[in-house]
Amino acid sequence: MKNRILTPALLALALTATPALAQDSGDSWLPSLLTETPQEGFDLAVTMARKGVTTTQGDKDVLFAVRPNYASDPQSLIDVSGVIAMYFATVAQANDHWEE
Amino acid sequence: MKNRILTPALLALALTATPALAQDSGDSWLPSLLTETPQEGFDLAVTMARKGVTTTQGDKDVLFAVRPNYASDPQSLIDVSGVIAMYFATVAQANDHWEE
Amino acid sequence: MKNRILTPALLALALTATPALAQDSGDSWLPSLLTETPQEGFDLAVTMARKGVTTTQGDKDVLFAVRPNYASDPQSLIDVSGVIAMYFATVAQANDHWEE
Amino acid sequence: MKNRILTPALLALALTATPALAQDSGDSWLPSLLTETPQEGFDLAVTMARKGVTTTQGDKDVLFAVRPNYASDPQSLIDVSGVIAMYFATVAQANDHWEE
Amino acid sequence: MKNRILTPALLALALTATPALAQDSGDSWLPSLLTETPQEGFDLAVTMARKGVTTTQGDKDVLFAVRPNYASDPQSLIDVSGVIAMYFATVAQANDHWEE
Amino acid sequence: MKNRILTPALLALALTATPALAQDSGDSWLPSLLTETPQEGFDLAVTMARKGVTTTQGDKDVLFAVRPNYASDPQSLIDVSGVIAMYFATVAQANDHWEE
Repeated sequence: MKNRILTPALLALALTATPALAQDSGDSWLPSLLTETPQEGFDLAVTMARKGVTTTQGDKDVLFAVRPNYASDPQSLIDVSGVIAMYFATVAQANDHWEE
Repeated sequence: MKNRILTPALLALALTATPALAQDSGDSWLPSLLTETPQEGFDLAVTMARKGVTTTQGDKDVLFAVRPNYASDPQSLIDVSGVIAMYFATVAQANDHWEE
Repeated sequence: MKNRILTPALLALALTATPALAQDSGDSWLPSLLTETPQEGFDLAVTMARKGVTTTQGDKDVLFAVRPNYASDPQSLIDVSGVIAMYFATVAQANDHWEE
Repeated sequence: MKNRILTPALLALALTATPALAQDSGDSWLPSLLTETPQEGFDLAVTMARKGVTTTQGDKDVLFAVRPNYASDPQSLIDVSGVIAMYFATVAQANDHWEE
Repeated sequence: MKNRILTPALLALALTATPALAQDSGDSWLPSLLTETPQEGFDLAVTMARKGVTTTQGDKDVLFAVRPNYASDPQSLIDVSGVIAMYFATVAQANDHWEE
Repeated sequence: MKNRILTPALLALALTATPALAQDSGDSWLPSLLTETPQEGFDLAVTMARKGVTTTQGDKDVLFAVRPNYASDPQSLIDVSGVIAMYFATVAQANDHWEE
């Protein structure tokens, strides 16, 4: 059996979610795909990637029950970047690529 | 031989399926790709990602026959987020990105 | 050397192929990308994901020569869902997302 | 160090290439993305996925120098299906999804 | 438990970020998706892939606390190339593929 | 710690780069996404996949410091094919899929 524990990198991803994600019962966390700038669109893509993680594993105890670990998994970091890229593609399309 | 057991993260994904997925013999679980809001579109994407899992491994006993495991696989969580991202791209396109 | 045997999850994917896939010599198994409903489109995407597997490994003996294994690979299940998502995106586009 | 040897599944992918791929010095192996039917488009996508492999590792001896192995890697089979899916998306777009 | 340390390849990715990424508090690091040429668009895609990594793991100490390692992970290099490809697709679309 | 050395497959990918990539300081290596034929578009996609690798790990010594290895990693070959597929999708779109 092979298990990887939750590395700091993932924790960073999952736990720095915005307050809107934390409650998740009040207002919508995704009212619109429109943003003012490409950079805000990138931030929204990061939020969506995080939401994809917390939706699957909502148990904060599980997310926290990891040993401090000073080595992070580069593969995870790359994969996260890939997931953000997918969400960003959708956000960019919704904003007509912020065409000038 | 390398096997990974079904982690809680995946169970969370596969077993919290909607009732519509559970029966899967009555009404359609995917009557339309249209949703009212982006957030509902995200939820639909999560449902589709789950359906992709339960379609392949429909045996609930197999899905449940896992040992309690307090460590979850961060790689799986990231990958799930990536699959949701792919479905969301399609749902967003179907809804013209909920353009305002 | 690292080998993973064919898990039940993959068998479920590869062997529940439709009769059209089984013969594969008569009529076309993919006459059109058009479907009546989104759900039928999803089913077509599942069929295409399976075809991608059986095209590569057509030897049924190899596919069957696996040990019974009550633990399935969650990573494989997630990845399969991702492949279905890719095919579904194409099928949805072919059907104008079943626009109403 | 972790190495996986070339499994039969990959060999099947790489070595059943069409004659056009085998010579690869004469006529173009990819004169057009247009096909008559969706199924032929799928076959073209399979060809392109194979070409992506043989382009990277053109040494047939390396491809063949593998031990007979009755267990195939389900992960590889799934990944190959995913690569085919990506090429198919492009081929389908080139053919306007074979719209009727 | 399986951990991969931060290999030089990833360090190269994460630490050669542009000054704009380094401060990350002043001006926008992504004011626009428009570039003069395809090559500049490729460079922008590389920047975005890096930003996806540093956004998740912002702790430079963690990024640096790796042992010198003369062997790099080819899988990581390939995956990074794939992430760049995803961002490039979006950048190319924003620039109408730099159509002439 | 798990490290994979640079396999011949990756070396083949990284080191057969075109002269334009080798210098990388003179003329642009990517002046345009337009090609005459689909096959030339495929070749361009291969070039871009290679560039994604050499951009991340530019140290040729690192790329070369690998032991001769007669077994290649099939997973890497498949993944490379997937990366090429992503770039090809973009190149094909830039060329209107070389529509006739």
